[in-house]
Amino acid sequence: MGCYEFELINRYFNKMHNNRKDVLAGIGDDCALVSVSSEQMIAISTDTLVSGTHFLPDINPVDLGYKSLAVNLSDLAAMGAEPSWLSLSLTLPLIDEDWIAAYSHSLLQQLNYYNMQLIGGDISRGPLSLTLSVHGLIPIGQALTRSSACIGDLVYVTGTLGDSAAGLAILQNKLQVNNEEDRQYLLGRHLRPKPRIQQGKILRNIANAAIDLSDGIINDLRRILINSNCGVHLYLENIPRSSALIRHTTPHQSLRWALSGGEDYELCFTVPKINCTALDIAMSYMGVIFTCIGQIKPSSEGIQLMLHNNPVKYNWHGYDHFKLE
Amino acid sequence: MGCYEFELINRYFNKMHNNRKDVLAGIGDDCALVSVSSEQMIAISTDTLVSGTHFLPDINPVDLGYKSLAVNLSDLAAMGAEPSWLSLSLTLPLIDEDWIAAYSHSLLQQLNYYNMQLIGGDISRGPLSLTLSVHGLIPIGQALTRSSACIGDLVYVTGTLGDSAAGLAILQNKLQVNNEEDRQYLLGRHLRPKPRIQQGKILRNIANAAIDLSDGIINDLRRILINSNCGVHLYLENIPRSSALIRHTTPHQSLRWALSGGEDYELCFTVPKINCTALDIAMSYMGVIFTCIGQIKPSSEGIQLMLHNNPVKYNWHGYDHFKLE
Repeated sequence: MGCYEFELINRYFNKMHNNRKDVLAGIGDDCALVSVSSEQMIAISTDTLVSGTHFLPDINPVDLGYKSLAVNLSDLAAMGAEPSWLSLSLTLPLIDEDWIAAYSHSLLQQLNYYNMQLIGGDISRGPLSLTLSVHGLIPIGQALTRSSACIGDLVYVTGTLGDSAAGLAILQNKLQVNNEEDRQYLLGRHLRPKPRIQQGKILRNIANAAIDLSDGIINDLRRILINSNCGVHLYLENIPRSSALIRHTTPHQSLRWALSGGEDYELCFTVPKINCTALDIAMSYMGVIFTCIGQIKPSSEGIQLMLHNNPVKYNWHGYDHFKLE
Repeated sequence: MGCYEFELINRYFNKMHNNRKDVLAGIGDDCALVSVSSEQMIAISTDTLVSGTHFLPDINPVDLGYKSLAVNLSDLAAMGAEPSWLSLSLTLPLIDEDWIAAYSHSLLQQLNYYNMQLIGGDISRGPLSLTLSVHGLIPIGQALTRSSACIGDLVYVTGTLGDSAAGLAILQNKLQVNNEEDRQYLLGRHLRPKPRIQQGKILRNIANAAIDLSDGIINDLRRILINSNCGVHLYLENIPRSSALIRHTTPHQSLRWALSGGEDYELCFTVPKINCTALDIAMSYMGVIFTCIGQIKPSSEGIQLMLHNNPVKYNWHGYDHFKLE
């Protein structure tokens, strides 16, 4: 680490308001030191965001500060974890202190909101990219995994799907939205996805399996199916879409984005029928809609799309960084 | 994560031989899950390596697999931690499976050697860079920090200094070394630094402060001094240099590289005099030389270079990614 890097970190990142008791040493030594009670396990997730691949090169640093943390927290939410610590690696083509100040301020605001502590990382010179490694805590035995779905479970999602893809299309001038309120809503869903941390924690004792939706419901749900060795019936008429999305797209387009647009960062989870009442009660306090969109079936069924109880074929595809562009 | 990324991870990274008992869920879910006994704390360090900044763009993937882990483990060594888990984020301009196979094989070999488990990460498309986040375990209260040096402590380093800078100079055609054995030795010291994990663990109960040497002894020792609010007398005649380095450089050059060349990944540590006999005994089993190169003084002394007990001035500078190039 160069001296200037050290100065930058001290100036912009080493001024957290919250100091967690489980952080014994934070920024400023060779390693951070943290401790955990023996009743808890640690959930760890690492994601890299590369300019031009994961975000548009001209993204506002305030939006990037928000989103870079949110997409990582979404992985914690999908396990039912309570966020705790962040390591951040920032690679920058040049040192633009205004950019760093805006990015770090936005990031630190979010960290405070989630009672998280930045415990380390580095700043390097190179093409713009960020790697965030988030840690969270879960009582032992209560994690939501991708491999626990059971035949008969009902499949749910939080929120509405496809809004983020529409927001991206607006940014790329591929979708015109004249209504300013709808435009801001869809942009916000792309730039400011809300990680479903509280919902994930509530689901610990209710859901069997869970995943967060980064690559579209079809692609992500397929991971639950593979890991749980199951199939699914997916009820297309139930796929939740926002009125803003419906107002500005054809039904075909909104369904395609909802199924495979990606970056919704909602939770998809499976619930045994016996827990559905508990789910209704618990989620009713959350202020976020949740919708039953299918049912887990034997693996021989694969992913069967259904429209009003009839099987249908649908030409969908998800987002794949390496294949689509 | 795209489908192809998922396949790549499964093919090349999801085949660890060792499965640690404290890893409850490894690669393949939204997060990894790990557990820790309440007598231990976790040391966490994250480092990014960018092509052209931290390694030469034509580096062999086998060397990169080795070195990318080694430089991170060196941070664990400097805290006295036992390595446990790794998260890896790999950003690649294109998918060259031969490259990935060579890199992953080399990395996994090292992970096995240290009984570490790869618990997650991702592969993205973009300019070549790697972010590694390593975790290690330390009994509570036994970590070596930068802030614990005391006036009167003797300052030691493991190994010899400056070899890595010479190895880099060979790769850059800035240093000619005709003796093949010396050439290979110096290249090896640059490409295959050995993290001083065992030495770090032994020092837990002997040393006060420690740091690993990534930016040259002057720059790195200064961090101990700042954090411990101390100064130092540094004995230039004691700075350990290898016979290979001495044979192929002027005394001035070898001293300059030893003081500020960077990337030695040796440990620098301070020991109270009362522990020096314990140090001698413990380190004698390690097969690595260690040398007393100075003594901690009051902060008013700053960094005072000494030659045979006389203060001298010396024009040194360390390595700074942002300032030197």
